[in-house]
Amino acid sequence: MQVLIPFHKIIQGCLMRKRFCSFPFSVRLGVLKTALLTGLFAVTGSASLVFASDSDDYAVIRAAAEKGKAASIARLKEWIALPSIAAEDLNMPEGAEYMRKLALDAGFDAAEVVPTEGHPGVWATMDNGAERTLAVYFMYDVKQYDPAEWSSPPLAGKIIDKPGFGKAMVGRGAVNQKGPQAMLLAGLHAMKEAGVKPPVNLVLVAEGEEEIGSPHFKQIVSRPDIMAKLKESEGIFIPIGWQDDKGNVGVNLGAKGIVELELVASGESWGRGPEKDIHSSLKAMVDSPAWRLVQALQTLVTSDGNTPAIDGWFENVRPLTEREKELIGQAAASSDEATRKKLLGVQHWIDDLPYQQALERLASQPTVNIEGLVAGYTGPGGKTILPGRAVAKMDLRLVPNQTRAEAEAKLRAHLDERGFKDVEMKIGGGYDPTETAEDSRIIQAEMATYRRAGVNATLNPRLAGSWPGAMFTAPPLSLPAGQFGIGHGSGAHAPDEYFVVESTNPKVAGAVDAAMAFVDFFYQVAEIE
Amino acid sequence: MQVLIPFHKIIQGCLMRKRFCSFPFSVRLGVLKTALLTGLFAVTGSASLVFASDSDDYAVIRAAAEKGKAASIARLKEWIALPSIAAEDLNMPEGAEYMRKLALDAGFDAAEVVPTEGHPGVWATMDNGAERTLAVYFMYDVKQYDPAEWSSPPLAGKIIDKPGFGKAMVGRGAVNQKGPQAMLLAGLHAMKEAGVKPPVNLVLVAEGEEEIGSPHFKQIVSRPDIMAKLKESEGIFIPIGWQDDKGNVGVNLGAKGIVELELVASGESWGRGPEKDIHSSLKAMVDSPAWRLVQALQTLVTSDGNTPAIDGWFENVRPLTEREKELIGQAAASSDEATRKKLLGVQHWIDDLPYQQALERLASQPTVNIEGLVAGYTGPGGKTILPGRAVAKMDLRLVPNQTRAEAEAKLRAHLDERGFKDVEMKIGGGYDPTETAEDSRIIQAEMATYRRAGVNATLNPRLAGSWPGAMFTAPPLSLPAGQFGIGHGSGAHAPDEYFVVESTNPKVAGAVDAAMAFVDFFYQVAEIE
Repeated sequence: MQVLIPFHKIIQGCLMRKRFCSFPFSVRLGVLKTALLTGLFAVTGSASLVFASDSDDYAVIRAAAEKGKAASIARLKEWIALPSIAAEDLNMPEGAEYMRKLALDAGFDAAEVVPTEGHPGVWATMDNGAERTLAVYFMYDVKQYDPAEWSSPPLAGKIIDKPGFGKAMVGRGAVNQKGPQAMLLAGLHAMKEAGVKPPVNLVLVAEGEEEIGSPHFKQIVSRPDIMAKLKESEGIFIPIGWQDDKGNVGVNLGAKGIVELELVASGESWGRGPEKDIHSSLKAMVDSPAWRLVQALQTLVTSDGNTPAIDGWFENVRPLTEREKELIGQAAASSDEATRKKLLGVQHWIDDLPYQQALERLASQPTVNIEGLVAGYTGPGGKTILPGRAVAKMDLRLVPNQTRAEAEAKLRAHLDERGFKDVEMKIGGGYDPTETAEDSRIIQAEMATYRRAGVNATLNPRLAGSWPGAMFTAPPLSLPAGQFGIGHGSGAHAPDEYFVVESTNPKVAGAVDAAMAFVDFFYQVAEIE
Repeated sequence: MQVLIPFHKIIQGCLMRKRFCSFPFSVRLGVLKTALLTGLFAVTGSASLVFASDSDDYAVIRAAAEKGKAASIARLKEWIALPSIAAEDLNMPEGAEYMRKLALDAGFDAAEVVPTEGHPGVWATMDNGAERTLAVYFMYDVKQYDPAEWSSPPLAGKIIDKPGFGKAMVGRGAVNQKGPQAMLLAGLHAMKEAGVKPPVNLVLVAEGEEEIGSPHFKQIVSRPDIMAKLKESEGIFIPIGWQDDKGNVGVNLGAKGIVELELVASGESWGRGPEKDIHSSLKAMVDSPAWRLVQALQTLVTSDGNTPAIDGWFENVRPLTEREKELIGQAAASSDEATRKKLLGVQHWIDDLPYQQALERLASQPTVNIEGLVAGYTGPGGKTILPGRAVAKMDLRLVPNQTRAEAEAKLRAHLDERGFKDVEMKIGGGYDPTETAEDSRIIQAEMATYRRAGVNATLNPRLAGSWPGAMFTAPPLSLPAGQFGIGHGSGAHAPDEYFVVESTNPKVAGAVDAAMAFVDFFYQVAEIE
């Protein structure tokens, strides 16, 4: 998911979940072993370990999952070895075709590559003659990587020891999102092997441009037959594996929207300053696009850099509801602020806010962020040039009821109003904020599955990150949408990204439990009121 | 010279010289050939072709220069093959030792490597029993380069055709400054071969840190015996080869000073924001060092980015003198503004100034320039991070009577006053502005040599670029200092830097004429009143 720079974000996720942890966990290994036939984890104090599915079926499926474990881990390793990176136009048709085959192998009746004006997606269906249909969202692309920064080759899928967790596979895409997706496929392989049909019909929609902001994903879901099938579903979810070391997970009821863009000041567009870099001594008689960019940028936020100052930016911002504040209040009260600060390398929140207010700000406030600055000479030391071009890489995070289109239009108008018509906005991608109701069947099924597995799941009113959920939650689809899964990985977008395949932590799922959680989730969606 | 991004700057130089071009040039090749024995160029209309030196000696020296031409070109090629780059700590002791040997080979009696706290310099002396001593400044370092941007390998010294000029050697350092320096050495080799002692004593001081702002050069010139010898001299000069296609040159009476520095905002120094890059979604609760930098930067200049707004910046700025304005007025009147704009890729000067005012601004105004911006993610596309660190690479050009120390102190005070104590100033190097009197013996000798060679030389009140001339012109040395030489090269700091070794342009010197110009300059310095 583009949402996550895994390392930091997952830390954030872990800590957010940690602070929701409200009931005591005490796991004994003996109990766990026994429990493996009936539940994902046996947790003393957990009242509901009865499966929605027929327990014989479930035991057979679990046995198949155990048997298929090595194949499932090999499947993930092979997938990691084929990186599709839209930003680099790397292995895009290959990645789509691979995704299609993965779906067919896992038991989908039909799977096809869906062309777009950008890179293709994949659409797959599995009609199990069930009453309900569940939709799954996959991404087959991964983030760029620099092998020099990795401890082992990013495409090798090396298995390493991850103290506190167990054995983990290291590779680009391991947690974002091939690992969790491979676990869902493993669950389907196990059902196929066991000869048990999933209790829901499944449809799978995959894209290869998630890491560049899903610029053509709408073309995929808008295809009439795809849209019709999606509309029939109970909702859609992304497989995740974000348990923290206590086994906790969060259930997000929504996420911020985002616009990723470059603001570019250049002599070419401005008609002032040089078209290309010239010698810096000429600054005394020639205008500077770099200063132009700085001057345009500083109008976008308050002087502390923390609040958007773009004209009309807050017009449609909806304040937190009482329920949202309540959930955040619980979070603040039960979590360890000092540890979170330490892990983030942050000494103060904005305005020295107390933690609860900082978390309210995190959930409720739109942001205007500088991801990167690039102008002129960027190497070691200096070089006496007056750059012809300067770029700020930005992301704008949006909250309900802002929209991406509104944000783009308002930023343009703001710049124009101040005479910065020449400062170009190069939109990379983005999506609207997304929200899913707490009482939707998919959220309720998630909570039930976690509960039955003894996993502490806490409701998070809004992910401060972003994912293209609005594609599903907004009209015309208007579907509930969420993330679901157990297991653990980290390092999305960072070096040494990993996903745990053998857990030595009784509270964290390994490959088989992670796969079985998806199986149980299917039953929950099928059977929940 | 750090002064020059050759391509643009030399273009600028060419044009500046062109506009001074006031008397008709008409050169016939037959005349030129004949003239080679008595002068550098025979120019009809030039009244003084009588040499200060004995003409027999001169003919013998010239014959030796012709004979040594191939060796002189080979010497340049070999020197280019050994790049010394202080910023990369590349071949620094090797470059100094090579410089030392070059001096000895050319006839210096003594030459030694002079250690500093940084990279070493070289000091060489040649006592010719003459009344007067002339000091020469060399740099043995070159600017960084990226071979991928070059048409031929930057260390290969390939000879190519340069239409309008002749055959040129392509290589890093070709014009900045190894080519012109090699021509001076060639002149000395010719005198040695001819058995003629230079009519002046020579001292040579070389450094290897010119391209990083000469941070340790003062340690070299401050050595008591070196300072004593330099003080005895008539003045000091840098060899150059900046003739334009009409053969014109400029004589600079001074140059701006410079401070090169990085301004760095970071979570580490600020105590706010993250220590390292974190996920951009956290912007809603975490401060941003990148915004911090933008806010600090925008206080440094007026809103158009063109005038320094640092507290007290103009306190010691001396306005142009009437004589300086007069020289600039002549320049503006006689030059081709449209061509210059086109070559620079600039449509308007600052404030749409007319050319003369733009040139006055160029000569008279201090600048605060952004050389480069670097923060967070700088690759293709975007990456959703909140960077822990942001850097602006800056250069501040200074005019008389500003000083580097004053500029550094005022910038620090300005930032502190506005609460930006955390924004670090990492000084790369710099030097004070420099001025040399028009009536100094060295400037008069330059003008006389150019005149006798039929080269149109025009007085430029102040180079907008910078060179460490103040090291010489300011106390305790208080020497006149200038640039001198003919020949042509371009592309300093840029790909495909070159220096003409065989001229097919009768107005531009090739290797032999360039060498002989230095020989004649020695005579002028020896004999001028």
